[in-house]
Parts: sequence; C-alpha cells; structure tokens
Amino acid sequence: MPVKIEIKKKEKHTRARLGELTTPHGVVETPIFMPVGTQATVKTMTPEEVKQTGGRLILSNTYHLYLRPGHDLIKEAGGLHQFMNWDGPILTDSGGFQVFSLGPLRTITEDGVEFRSHIDGSKHFFTPEKVMEIEQALGADIAMAFDECAPYPCDKEYAVAALERTTRWAERCKKAHTRKDQALFGIVQGGVFTDLRERSARELIALDFPGYGIGGLSVGEPKELMYEVLDNLMPIMPEDKPRYLMGVGSPDCLIEGVVRGIDMFDCVLPTRIARNGTVFTRNGKLTVRNAEYARDFSPMDKHCNCYACQNYSRAYIRHLIKADEILGIRLTTIHNLHFLQDLMENIRQAIREDRLLAYREEFLKVFNAG
Amino acid sequence: MPVKIEIKKKEKHTRARLGELTTPHGVVETPIFMPVGTQATVKTMTPEEVKQTGGRLILSNTYHLYLRPGHDLIKEAGGLHQFMNWDGPILTDSGGFQVFSLGPLRTITEDGVEFRSHIDGSKHFFTPEKVMEIEQALGADIAMAFDECAPYPCDKEYAVAALERTTRWAERCKKAHTRKDQALFGIVQGGVFTDLRERSARELIALDFPGYGIGGLSVGEPKELMYEVLDNLMPIMPEDKPRYLMGVGSPDCLIEGVVRGIDMFDCVLPTRIARNGTVFTRNGKLTVRNAEYARDFSPMDKHCNCYACQNYSRAYIRHLIKADEILGIRLTTIHNLHFLQDLMENIRQAIREDRLLAYREEFLKVFNAG
Repeated sequence: MPVKIEIKKKEKHTRARLGELTTPHGVVETPIFMPVGTQATVKTMTPEEVKQTGGRLILSNTYHLYLRPGHDLIKEAGGLHQFMNWDGPILTDSGGFQVFSLGPLRTITEDGVEFRSHIDGSKHFFTPEKVMEIEQALGADIAMAFDECAPYPCDKEYAVAALERTTRWAERCKKAHTRKDQALFGIVQGGVFTDLRERSARELIALDFPGYGIGGLSVGEPKELMYEVLDNLMPIMPEDKPRYLMGVGSPDCLIEGVVRGIDMFDCVLPTRIARNGTVFTRNGKLTVRNAEYARDFSPMDKHCNCYACQNYSRAYIRHLIKADEILGIRLTTIHNLHFLQDLMENIRQAIREDRLLAYREEFLKVFNAG
Repeated sequence: MPVKIEIKKKEKHTRARLGELTTPHGVVETPIFMPVGTQATVKTMTPEEVKQTGGRLILSNTYHLYLRPGHDLIKEAGGLHQFMNWDGPILTDSGGFQVFSLGPLRTITEDGVEFRSHIDGSKHFFTPEKVMEIEQALGADIAMAFDECAPYPCDKEYAVAALERTTRWAERCKKAHTRKDQALFGIVQGGVFTDLRERSARELIALDFPGYGIGGLSVGEPKELMYEVLDNLMPIMPEDKPRYLMGVGSPDCLIEGVVRGIDMFDCVLPTRIARNGTVFTRNGKLTVRNAEYARDFSPMDKHCNCYACQNYSRAYIRHLIKADEILGIRLTTIHNLHFLQDLMENIRQAIREDRLLAYREEFLKVFNAG
C-alpha cells in the first residue's frame, strides 16, 4: 500500500483526527492543506518557497498537464516530481471537475467525456482508462479516480445518474490502475442530497480504495448545506482511510471540515486572490492594492512571521501590484499560503489539546470581525 | 565624500582597472554590473535573489519612481533602501534618458523638460533642481545629474547644443545637491563626435564631480563607433574617479568597456530578454521558449551553477513560459543576471592576472560561435 494514514489522536469533542499520511515521497501530518500547482508549478513560487510557507503535499491538475506540456513529455522527464523539481508528495486530480466545468465544450457519455481544449479548441476524449494512463504517466503519489461532478443546483435524478456513473467509472479506474507506487482514491459524489452521498460512499467503500475524495462540494451551494452533507456523510467513512474534501480552502471551511473529520484539503483560493491583491489576515481579508494602503508602512498582517510580512510594507506591496511588478503577487502569494499553513498548524495543535471548538470560536470571532 | 573609488590594480596590457567602490551602503568591487530595478524592484526578483546572482549595487529609475509611487511617498517610507528592502548601495539615474525617449510627449527648454506621463498622460516638468529634489528624496548612494541625451544619429550642431546644456544643467544640479550621504555624478555627452566628447568631459571634470557617467551611447550607433568614442575619451578621464558607462550590458560590450577603462555598467538587457524567454549561455544566446527545446531535459547552460540551471531543465522552463507561468521568467532572469555577474567576476580575475585580452578572445570565440 503506497499511501496510508495512521491516526495519532482523535479530538475529544469533535470528529477531528490528527494523523500521519505516509506516501512514497515522505510522511506528512494531517489535517493538511495542499497548495495547487495547476500547471506543474504553484503559481509564482519555487518549490523551496512552497516548503518555506509550510506546504508539504501539493496538488497538480491532470487536465492541464495532459494538454500542456503533455503527460508523455512529463513521463519522459522522469515524472512530475522530477519535471518540476518537487521532492515531496504530489496528488493529481482526475480532470473530472475541469472537463465538467467546460460546459458547452464537453459531451458526457457512458464511455467518457469528449471535450475541447480551452487553449486551442482541439478535440479530446477522456475515459476512466485514459485518465488512469495519464495519471500513471504523471506519477503522483496519489491519483484521483475519474468522476462525474454534478453541478449545483441540480435535480435529484441528475445527481443519481452522476453518482451511479461515478461508481461505474471508479470500478473501471481501479481495473486500469496498475502502478504500485501510486495510490488511487475514489471520489464520493451525490450533490447536496444526504441519502445520495451515503449511497455513493457505500458503493465506493465496497470497492476498497486506500482513500476517498469528497467531490462536488463548494460548487456554489451555501456553506451550511456543505456542512450538513459532511455531518451526515463523515460517520460512515472508514476510520482508517484518509478523507479529502476537494476544492475547499477558505479559512472557515478548513476549520469546519476538520471538525467534521476531514484530513485533506486543496484550493486555488489563497493563490488566486493573492494575484488579485487580496490577502488573509488574522482580522479578515485585506485588499492591499486599495488606495487606502498607499502610505501604510505596516506589514500586511502584523501577527504574521512570513517572509513578506517580515520584510515589506503594505505601501510597497501595493506599489508593486499597481505597477504590475511580479514581486508584488509573489509576496501576497507567499503570505496567503503561509497564513493557511499556519492556520492548519494551529488546528492540529488544537486537536492535540482537545480544544478545537474553542479555537474555532476564537479564530472566527476575530477573522469575521475584520 | 560619500562615494569614492580605490584602484587596487591596473591591468598591464589594457586600460582596465580593478577597484573598490566605497558607498554609504558598503564597498563593492569594480568593474561592476548593476542590475536595473526600474520601479523599486529588479523585475521578478527579491533582494536576496539579486544578491544570490552576485548583484551588489542596483540601479533604480527616477522618472518611474517620481510618477509612481512618488518620491515623497518613498521619502516618507524612509527612502528607497527601506521602501524596497535593499540594504546594499543604489544608484538612481536622473530621468534624462527616459524623458528624452518620450519623443513627441516632451518639450526641451533651457529651464528643463516638459513631458507627459506614459502612465496617464498627465503633464510634468523636470528641471535640474526638481530632479535633485527627487533624487535626494529617494536617497540612493549615487545620484546622476540631469542631462540632455542626444539621439543617434544627430547632426553635430544638435550634439553641441545638447552637450553645452548638459554642462549648464550639471552646474545647476551641483548647486541644488546638498545631501551629504549621497554622491552626485556628472554625465559626459557629445554623441559620437570624439572632439565633443572630449569637450564635454573637460567641462564636467572642471566641476569636479566624485564620479562620471558616460551617457548617450548604445542608443543605436554601431558598436565600433561606441568603442572608438571610448578609446578617445577614456585617457582624459580622471584616474581617481569611477567611470560609469550608462545603459550598456551585452557580454561583448561589458568586456570591451572594461578593456577601455570603464568601472560601472547597467542595462535592462539581461532581465528584459529573460522575460521574453531568451538566455545567455557560454555558447551564445538561446531562446529557451522555442519548440526545439520542448523535450530537452538538459539545463539552460550546462556550465552554469545558478539556481535555475542546477534544478530545472530547458523543457520545464519552456513549458512554464509557454503556459504563462511566472516561475519561468523568474528562472530565466536569475540565470541571465547570474551569467553577467559571473562574467564580471571572470573579468576581474583576468585583470588580477593581467590576462584580460586573452580572456576576451576565449570568451568571445565560444560565445559568438554559438
């Protein structure tokens, strides 16, 4: 088994777990936030910088790498780790979410999904088998099964069809996946319907994957609905397997997910808003490119010990962003990733001390007041 | 005297000098290449990265900083060093070259130059006194006098008028410059006319500046003409003052300038071509974004020990640039600056060993054959 989780401690008052996830490229502590390196790079950063922010396990996108530079090229380079010079663990998504997001550019059949490239409009076909071929060529530590992600809102009939297909595709993925140094995770679907989530989970658990993604959440539904789904779903998930809440990464959702028993998260949010000049602070979000910070010579977040906050002022970072200087968005990116990794460390510490609910209250009170 | 040069050694067979330039922010070895940080940042880089490439003294642009974020704001931040977190020496140009380059957007009178901002079209007026106010507010170690840079080609009458005005403006700059922890350098003009260059130099030397820029070269004239101007000009420049060849930085011109007695250089070339996907190698320039490198898993320059060449392949860097990923141009920028700093170190070593002409031949034979 190339990837397994060892639960070191369960928090007394919640479903939160402290764990160690073993992978072919090292052991990482959970709960963990995975920065996203869509095109074989966490945008603007070197691998060393990602590590300095506390990043240990990164996600990369199968859809993007398949189109450019191509999985065959990455295989020829010795795999994704070597290609991008990242020696820690990597998880690749399956491209499922990406191709379904293409809307009119894609057609779903039982066999797979036909889609057109967002880069040049060329036509492509993803089947579960094809996606396994790509993910095995990329060679991440964890590959995700090819799933059908239902949109929000969608009617129950559609959600049923998507979850049933997801199970059939999960079986095909499992059959096609042979790489011994890579784990294949199944993905639970079922929209916001708690009974469908339970059915999807039971069908996937029967296939005995070494870990499970929870997909199709944070796709536009109210957060309360997502929490309700997790409240109902998590008790039936196997205790001894990692649970990964896909595409979720706002500070409040990270805490709420951990409280409900999630071990892994990924999200483009911190890096995306950083490039737009917005940063997390202990006191909520701050849009550092705004005019009000032009002569503010204090750091982005005075409680932060990241490289950006230790060395640069809001005024300077605002100037860089207004002047289209790359260093500006490098600094906001470093800060946002550091902020979330710091949050995860605080969460893990709160689990160790059985005080996660108190920590949630403290954190959210200050963060939401900002 | 805040800035002075001590000549440690003269090369036996050329006019090349090995020196130590003392500034309020430390001592640097000459001949030196100064990376350009136009908008208070060497494009794409942190100060630490600039130092890792060997950069010790950087240039920043008065015209750009005056327009954005404004010299008053930078003064309020504690000066340019503190604003941008660079603790080494800085040189600011005078904006002369920039405003003259604005073409139809500027009008020259005896009092100064009226110009329109390239950012928002707003109207501004630079006089020698105004430029001194700005440069003193920025607080670099070395400020350059406000000069009139004649274009190439231009007739002798125009070149005479520009050099005469440059001398009168140099006097006004000297009078207006009072900051004790900043040196003010004069700028020699005179186009490609050797007699005018000599006249300009003698007039400025009479004003006794602590250092001299040589401006108005590398503005489109053949390189041979620039070398001829330097051959005639350098023998009359004071031995005990630094000589700075402005805006010059291609590898061959760096060597030829040093051979003729230049101590300081700056140029946007290495950083600009890097952002366009072109890098220097021992075997000449290489456009790493070209299709031919798509599956080339060797480093940009196999003889290079920069961070980029030690860790990444041509194929990966090409992928990043094609996919508009910022890490790509960060890596090409690191490499190009490292390449030029490495060249400067080799040049200094060749001066120490009295073998600069042999080094020039070796270097150019391989570089030009590439």
